[in-house]
Amino acid sequence: MKRTERVGAIIRILTQNPNQIYSLGYFSDMFTAAKSTVSEDVSTARQLLLATELGRIETTAGAKGGIKYIPLVSPRHGEELLTKLCSKLSDSNRILGGGFLYTSDLMFDPNIVSGVAMMFSEQFMNRGADYVVTIETKGIPIAFMTAHMLNLPLVVVRRESKISEGSTVSINYFSGSAERIQKMSLAKRAVEPGKRAIIIDDFMRAGGSIKGIIEILGEFDVSVVGTGVVIASVEPQKKKIDDYYPLLYLGEVDEEAKTIEIFRERDVKFENRA
Amino acid sequence: MKRTERVGAIIRILTQNPNQIYSLGYFSDMFTAAKSTVSEDVSTARQLLLATELGRIETTAGAKGGIKYIPLVSPRHGEELLTKLCSKLSDSNRILGGGFLYTSDLMFDPNIVSGVAMMFSEQFMNRGADYVVTIETKGIPIAFMTAHMLNLPLVVVRRESKISEGSTVSINYFSGSAERIQKMSLAKRAVEPGKRAIIIDDFMRAGGSIKGIIEILGEFDVSVVGTGVVIASVEPQKKKIDDYYPLLYLGEVDEEAKTIEIFRERDVKFENRA
Repeated sequence: MKRTERVGAIIRILTQNPNQIYSLGYFSDMFTAAKSTVSEDVSTARQLLLATELGRIETTAGAKGGIKYIPLVSPRHGEELLTKLCSKLSDSNRILGGGFLYTSDLMFDPNIVSGVAMMFSEQFMNRGADYVVTIETKGIPIAFMTAHMLNLPLVVVRRESKISEGSTVSINYFSGSAERIQKMSLAKRAVEPGKRAIIIDDFMRAGGSIKGIIEILGEFDVSVVGTGVVIASVEPQKKKIDDYYPLLYLGEVDEEAKTIEIFRERDVKFENRA
Repeated sequence: MKRTERVGAIIRILTQNPNQIYSLGYFSDMFTAAKSTVSEDVSTARQLLLATELGRIETTAGAKGGIKYIPLVSPRHGEELLTKLCSKLSDSNRILGGGFLYTSDLMFDPNIVSGVAMMFSEQFMNRGADYVVTIETKGIPIAFMTAHMLNLPLVVVRRESKISEGSTVSINYFSGSAERIQKMSLAKRAVEPGKRAIIIDDFMRAGGSIKGIIEILGEFDVSVVGTGVVIASVEPQKKKIDDYYPLLYLGEVDEEAKTIEIFRERDVKFENRA
C-alpha cells in the first residue's frame, strides 16, 4: 500500500469511530508496515485534518495509549449550521397551537443531527462523562449522535416503565410544557452508581424534565456534569436548572401575525442569569 | 495541498456524509486545484476504500452528478459484528420475566448501532426509499443511523399523539408482545403521499407493530419497500407480515435453566416460509 492509501484508510477508520483509541500496532498490522511508517502516516493525517478544519487527531500515552479522532466544528461550519437552523425554525408553517412549533423533521434530519451533535460533543468532551442521557422521544437521535461522537453509551429515560426494561426506578415531576404531573422511569440496569452523565435534549421550557432527569439519576448516584439543549425558550427566564448550554433560544410565537422569534444564544440577555 | 492531504480530506468528507452527492467542483474549490487533479484524487480514494473493504465511491452522471460514498460492511466485519451480538445476547443476565430480554444497552451502543445500520443500509440501498420509519423507542438509534447512512429523513411513529406533533392520524392494532390493543399515531406533516419507506425496528415477535406501521403509512399513501429488524423471534413462525429482513433470531428463553437461544438467520428453517 502506498502512503496516500494508508493515510486515507487511517482517516476513514478514525473519523468513523470518534474518540476511540487505536494503537499504532493496529494499523501496522493492517498495512503490514513498520510502526515508524504508520507514525509518519498519522502525522500527515493529523496535519490535513487541521488544515481542512475537519477535526483533530490526539495521541495518548501509556500501555493503552494510541491515537484517536476528536470531531471539531470549525467556527465557519458552526455558524452556517446555526444560521440554517434559525432560518428553518422561523418558518411560520411550523406554528402549532399553544405556542408550540413542529420541529420533528429537523430533530430527525441526519445532516442537522450530525452537526448539532458535533457541537455538543465539542462542548462536553472534557467533562469526564460516562453516559449521554436523554428522555424519549424527540431528542434521541441528537443524544445518540452525541454519544457516538464521544464514544459513550446512550441511556434513555422512559415515560412509562416497560416490561422489556426489567425493574425500574420511577419519579413524578411537574412538566410546565404539559402543565401537569408526569412520570419518568429508568431501568435499574441502565447505569452504574458513581458514574457521570451529560444530559442532551431537543427542547427546554422551564427545565422541569431536565430537573427530573437529574433527580432520577441522583437516585442511582449518577451525577450530571453538563446539559445541552438544542432550543431553550426565553420564557420563563427563571429556569428550574441553572447550568445548561442551549444552541438557540425561542422567543415569542405569534399565532396571529404568524411570526416566530429565534435568537442566537449570544443575543439573549437574561436579567437573572449570570 | 499535497495529493495525500487532498485524498484524506475527500475521504473524511465523503465517508462522514454517506450517500450525499458532491460535485468535483466542490472539491476543486476547496483545494483550489484543477478538476482533473481532483478526479485523480477521487480515483485514488476509490481504490483505497476498495482495497481496505471500507466502502465504495460511486460516480453519478448528469447536471446534478458527482461522487458519493456508499458504506459497505465487508463479509468479515459483518461476521464479526453478528458473532459479537449473538454472544452478548446469549448472556443469561439479560433474562427478564415472560421470555423478554434486556437489550437496551445493545440497541443504544454506538458501535453496535453503527455496524447494524450499515448492514441495513447495504440491504436496502437500492429500494428507492424516501424515508426510514420506526416506532418509538428502542429502535430509534438504529433507524436513525440507517437513515444517516442512506441520507434519508427519519420518521418516528409515536405511541401517543403529542401536542408538538400537530394534527395526527391514529390507528389501533393488536400487539402480541403486550397482548393487548395498542395505539400508534403519525403526524400529518411527517410524510408526503406517494412516497416510499423502509421500516427499521429493534425486535419483532409476530409482526403486529410492523403491520400497524404499514397500515398507518397506507393511510398517507406511503408504500413500504423493505423491513429490517435486528432480532426476530422464531415463534410464532407464522408472522403477520411476509417480507422482512432479520439479522438474528431469538429462540427459546428458558428462565429456569437460564439459557437463551440466538440463531443466525441462515440457521433458521421455517416450514411455512419460502
